[in-house]
Amino acid sequence: MSEKMKQIEAWLRRQDGRFAYIADPTNVFYLTHFKCDPHERFLGLFLFPEDEPFLICPELEVGQAQASDFGHEVIGYRDDQDPWIFVKKALDQRHTDSTKVFIEPTTLPYQKALALKSIDEKVTFGSIEDYLSDMRNIKDAHELAAMKKAGEIADYAVKLGIDAIKKGRTEAEIVAEIEHELAKQGYSQMAFDTMVLTGENTANPHGYPGTHQIHEGDFVLFDLGVVIDGYCSDITRTVCFKHATDEQHKIYETTLQANREAIKAARKGLRIGDLDGVARKVIADAGYGHYFTHRLGHGLGLGEHEQPSMSAANDKTLTTGMVFTIEPGIYVPGVGGVRIEDDVYLSENGPETLTHFPKELQIID
Amino acid sequence: MSEKMKQIEAWLRRQDGRFAYIADPTNVFYLTHFKCDPHERFLGLFLFPEDEPFLICPELEVGQAQASDFGHEVIGYRDDQDPWIFVKKALDQRHTDSTKVFIEPTTLPYQKALALKSIDEKVTFGSIEDYLSDMRNIKDAHELAAMKKAGEIADYAVKLGIDAIKKGRTEAEIVAEIEHELAKQGYSQMAFDTMVLTGENTANPHGYPGTHQIHEGDFVLFDLGVVIDGYCSDITRTVCFKHATDEQHKIYETTLQANREAIKAARKGLRIGDLDGVARKVIADAGYGHYFTHRLGHGLGLGEHEQPSMSAANDKTLTTGMVFTIEPGIYVPGVGGVRIEDDVYLSENGPETLTHFPKELQIID
Repeated sequence: MSEKMKQIEAWLRRQDGRFAYIADPTNVFYLTHFKCDPHERFLGLFLFPEDEPFLICPELEVGQAQASDFGHEVIGYRDDQDPWIFVKKALDQRHTDSTKVFIEPTTLPYQKALALKSIDEKVTFGSIEDYLSDMRNIKDAHELAAMKKAGEIADYAVKLGIDAIKKGRTEAEIVAEIEHELAKQGYSQMAFDTMVLTGENTANPHGYPGTHQIHEGDFVLFDLGVVIDGYCSDITRTVCFKHATDEQHKIYETTLQANREAIKAARKGLRIGDLDGVARKVIADAGYGHYFTHRLGHGLGLGEHEQPSMSAANDKTLTTGMVFTIEPGIYVPGVGGVRIEDDVYLSENGPETLTHFPKELQIID
Repeated sequence: MSEKMKQIEAWLRRQDGRFAYIADPTNVFYLTHFKCDPHERFLGLFLFPEDEPFLICPELEVGQAQASDFGHEVIGYRDDQDPWIFVKKALDQRHTDSTKVFIEPTTLPYQKALALKSIDEKVTFGSIEDYLSDMRNIKDAHELAAMKKAGEIADYAVKLGIDAIKKGRTEAEIVAEIEHELAKQGYSQMAFDTMVLTGENTANPHGYPGTHQIHEGDFVLFDLGVVIDGYCSDITRTVCFKHATDEQHKIYETTLQANREAIKAARKGLRIGDLDGVARKVIADAGYGHYFTHRLGHGLGLGEHEQPSMSAANDKTLTTGMVFTIEPGIYVPGVGGVRIEDDVYLSENGPETLTHFPKELQIID
């Protein structure tokens, strides 16, 4: 059994829990290295304080589950079978007096919680999510190695994107160019939809790459990441094509300063909301406060967006071992937007960036 | 207001409902054409039997929501604000005596249901999902046009993949080749991760494309789809590289016969489980019953997997206007697998396939 599963079992004993029902495929992977994307089908990892765990998944996936690090009973079901009947049977074989069941309330569908109650009325629910996300926040050496590699490939992907910039090329063409080159080298899993935005489209922090063509004087923004051994990177770089106005320079330099000061300020014990404040103050002082319309960043790991949310309202503190993004941005409608994002690992010795692509403003010819 | 929102309002009146809370981004898009992927952030479309609807989304997305077909109050919130406070205020402005709130229980996280209860204890929950999926099942002319186009592009993508087959090429390289060519032509959104499998890897119906190289005598399986105006296609074709054994021929011809007979049998009023049975019988009669390890198919539309589930256990019947996949497969460990999948529209005049790539066994040289 993985150390991580043992850690959950020990936690369940401390909570006097009956069992934990882990349904989020990413959490299942985190604990077992069993990769399964069951779509609307049922996947459940059931862990107990004292009893033998079991895993239930579509029959198709049983072989992969057995080949994973899980190493315990794997129950398969066919599409025409009700998996809850198997769950009930397996639960009935494992007795405890506790009624407290730990679930993932922010992702577990309401219906699955109801179904669990329907096979055992006495169940009461608690959340294992904070504990799991605290565990996932702290990266071990194996995880960090994967994330460093993912950061390197993200750096390389930005270089590919910048090399692909040409007048008249569309955002979607550059996305394709980046992903094609990566895939040829075996990096075919992106962490999220690759974003390449140009011109006024950069002023939309959640824009979609489309048929906008690159024109002289445009900002061109790349936001992308890859997945290595399940772990994500997430980088943003913004460049100018051919030339930049004074305002573009000012927007860029302000964003860069916010990025650098926030990275430098990251240290163990700092309130997360205050780290957001460091970047926000730089941008507000330059007069762009209204144009930094999102949080500073987010945790990163198996998910491209994890806890902690690096927002002004977050009262939690930074801990050694965390990986998170620092991604201030300024988005001026009609002018364009700049975002500069790095992945930061908080080591014993302070912040280490996992993304290294140069950040000085590049004017692409 | 869209006709579809009006239809929901009328349904709420018939149910004597208090309101519907739609949280699934795809259902929100279906009803409003507002495209928003809020990740872990909050998105909610609230529809009432008599009152004015409202939509709540991250502040960043408010502009796009207002530009959509929604046409009513859009409430934005920042990352440091609790959206439920806004929801409560908006709900308090709309009075009804009913306590019955309709949600999407299979996708709405347990915590969001709890949060809704916490701002109004009297709430009781019902499901709007069956009604919404029945609505989504039946495609109007606009939706069908998008799906026909998506089918055409999927046909073309299979051709690109077959053209890219070369000895020694890896699955991932061919995926990259297909997606690169599509993106160059502006089709950059795939319906799901493109699957190209070769050799023994084809025997795993849920395999991942990797560094397996194509060898002579391999099955090469393509399972892919694109998104056009939000609507998905989903096609699978399997070919042989250089030559095929008698067993490969038999597996292929059996799968093809199952595909063709099931398509031919699709008609209004037929029990869905019985359509699955048509294909399953062909495969069982040929002695491969144990190797057809999944359901016949699934509904298709805005989601790549929608209701209805085309499984043996489904007692519902086919209705005019539905689009679904028919995708029998035979997976023989150590030999390889074949799947042949088409998207089928059930018109007044019977089944029409939206995917047209030739299905006779191709031996690629």
